Amino acid sequence: MRTIEWCDGAVRLIDQRRLPHEEIWHTYGSYQGVARAIVEMQIRGAPAIGAAAAYGVALAALASPAQTPAALQADLDEALRVLAATRPTAVNLFWALERMRTVAQAALASGVDVARAALVAEARAIADEDVETNRRMAEFGAALIADGMSLLTHCNAGALATVDIGTTLGVIHAAHEAGKRIHVYVDETRPFLQGARLTAWELMRWGVPLTLITDNMAGHFISRGKVNLVMTGADRIAANGDTANKIGTYTLGVLAHENGVPLYIVAPTTTIDLGIATGADIPIEERSPREVTHICDVPIAPAGVPVANPAFDVTPHRYIAGIVTEQGIVYPPFGVGLRRVVREA
Amino acid sequence: MRTIEWCDGAVRLIDQRRLPHEEIWHTYGSYQGVARAIVEMQIRGAPAIGAAAAYGVALAALASPAQTPAALQADLDEALRVLAATRPTAVNLFWALERMRTVAQAALASGVDVARAALVAEARAIADEDVETNRRMAEFGAALIADGMSLLTHCNAGALATVDIGTTLGVIHAAHEAGKRIHVYVDETRPFLQGARLTAWELMRWGVPLTLITDNMAGHFISRGKVNLVMTGADRIAANGDTANKIGTYTLGVLAHENGVPLYIVAPTTTIDLGIATGADIPIEERSPREVTHICDVPIAPAGVPVANPAFDVTPHRYIAGIVTEQGIVYPPFGVGLRRVVREA
Repeated sequence: MRTIEWCDGAVRLIDQRRLPHEEIWHTYGSYQGVARAIVEMQIRGAPAIGAAAAYGVALAALASPAQTPAALQADLDEALRVLAATRPTAVNLFWALERMRTVAQAALASGVDVARAALVAEARAIADEDVETNRRMAEFGAALIADGMSLLTHCNAGALATVDIGTTLGVIHAAHEAGKRIHVYVDETRPFLQGARLTAWELMRWGVPLTLITDNMAGHFISRGKVNLVMTGADRIAANGDTANKIGTYTLGVLAHENGVPLYIVAPTTTIDLGIATGADIPIEERSPREVTHICDVPIAPAGVPVANPAFDVTPHRYIAGIVTEQGIVYPPFGVGLRRVVREA
Repeated sequence: MRTIEWCDGAVRLIDQRRLPHEEIWHTYGSYQGVARAIVEMQIRGAPAIGAAAAYGVALAALASPAQTPAALQADLDEALRVLAATRPTAVNLFWALERMRTVAQAALASGVDVARAALVAEARAIADEDVETNRRMAEFGAALIADGMSLLTHCNAGALATVDIGTTLGVIHAAHEAGKRIHVYVDETRPFLQGARLTAWELMRWGVPLTLITDNMAGHFISRGKVNLVMTGADRIAANGDTANKIGTYTLGVLAHENGVPLYIVAPTTTIDLGIATGADIPIEERSPREVTHICDVPIAPAGVPVANPAFDVTPHRYIAGIVTEQGIVYPPFGVGLRRVVREA
């Protein structure tokens, strides 16, 4: 299942806010529509956001009435600015926009029609490459999973977080398809419930045995020896291996470390940001208090209660056993290995 | 505000499932009604459950048509059996029932009317003593809180978890009333949302500054130095200090320990179970999957998803800095100190 598709000059994507109860697809013909879909988390997950943003730039090129390279450049700059402002933490967004900007600059010299065609082709290439990248990560990562293992995952790092297949769930799917008997504890992942709504849905479709738990139950099961491996995706990995991912991942890192359970991150090299030395420099998005105070529009707290809603946290590299990329698995010390896989990508 | 009251031969209690949106009080004239209220968590919190169960036995005595000590004993035995089967983890329940059983045995020798009066008086004494116990814990515990401190608490250990005042929230209230400027991070506490619904409500009524967070955000704030002290209640404390409390407390213990932040437990001596050597022997209640898959009757996960729902976990004593009781604060090694405070209680 492709989460996001190019379809007759428009972008079609599944509305992840409505899952698992409804499979609603939206079609966007403008970059503004795509930007709003990212802000509102109709589409989420670092690699999926990158692909969506690239398609957004392609839509901006097609929708622009510009007849000169300079005019098209100006319209594209505006689209790039709007799309870059959608969400701050996942670096795949900025990586995809930078790639689109570079293609635009080169192609505009050959005229606006060439540039439009080149941008559509580049966005499609980014999406197609993401699928191939996930396929390769699944292959590398599946080797970490032995028959009979029980895993724990957080948030959704599945097909829905990417263009297809998924990062962590791609690995889990590959292990399952290889005939390994595995079991997955799924954190519900408050406040947006990506685990309960999306990961549980994906695993059930594949027939992978799972147990849904609330986030605060993970420690109980890890401490009682019920979890052999913790595996999550990532939104940004600093040069030293510190990893920003969905809020709660830091806690899993501490719990896993304390109990001698390895935590593996599964993420494409496009999630690695060598321009940032440590996790302390990764910007953490603060989202609306309403995500905490309401669930499915039902209030669960007193009106007017003060709320914090950081969408991500940073797991220091010392809690991470390895980072699975499409160029292979990087082990500590991460500095050299991360530079190598980025160079080879 | 008394959470539970004896009122003209019946028990009146606030329905905690409806808070904070509605303040609904129920009045029960039978022990079966009280038992159902405990099972359904209309009333929860270890000390409150103990008081409710004691009142349940008093109701059974009043409702029994028995004219002989033997007949009343039989009816009381049945009520004690039903009330003991409501919830397995909080030891205060069994402590209160044992105290009522002892009073019944002694008083029945003087006839059924004397026994009925003695059981009502004993239940009221248990409730009144709980309030006094909380007042003393608040005094001891408030000394741990310095001006300007930021605390983090989990679940609800407030007036609503006791007969009045609260354990942890009693301490926080006392520090606030003493003029100390404090701030409290409140874990929402899935699945039952006692933090979002009850603790936030209590703190807002008192005017204590707070920030509501999802459970998986606690680690983020602890790791960034935003929390000086973690403080929770308890449902059962083993002889070595291992403490069963609401699911997620173990995780807070690990997070606090890893970040050099002290975790204090606030619990009356009636929560200490010297008959259990370590936390491994504490029974952990498994509750309905629906608490995880539905929030306020709204489904948040795919239909039919397998679920685990342990209501409690055990925090090993090595993560606990101290245990605040009405007989003073017990510090590690806990074995000797816990025996002392139980003896002196």
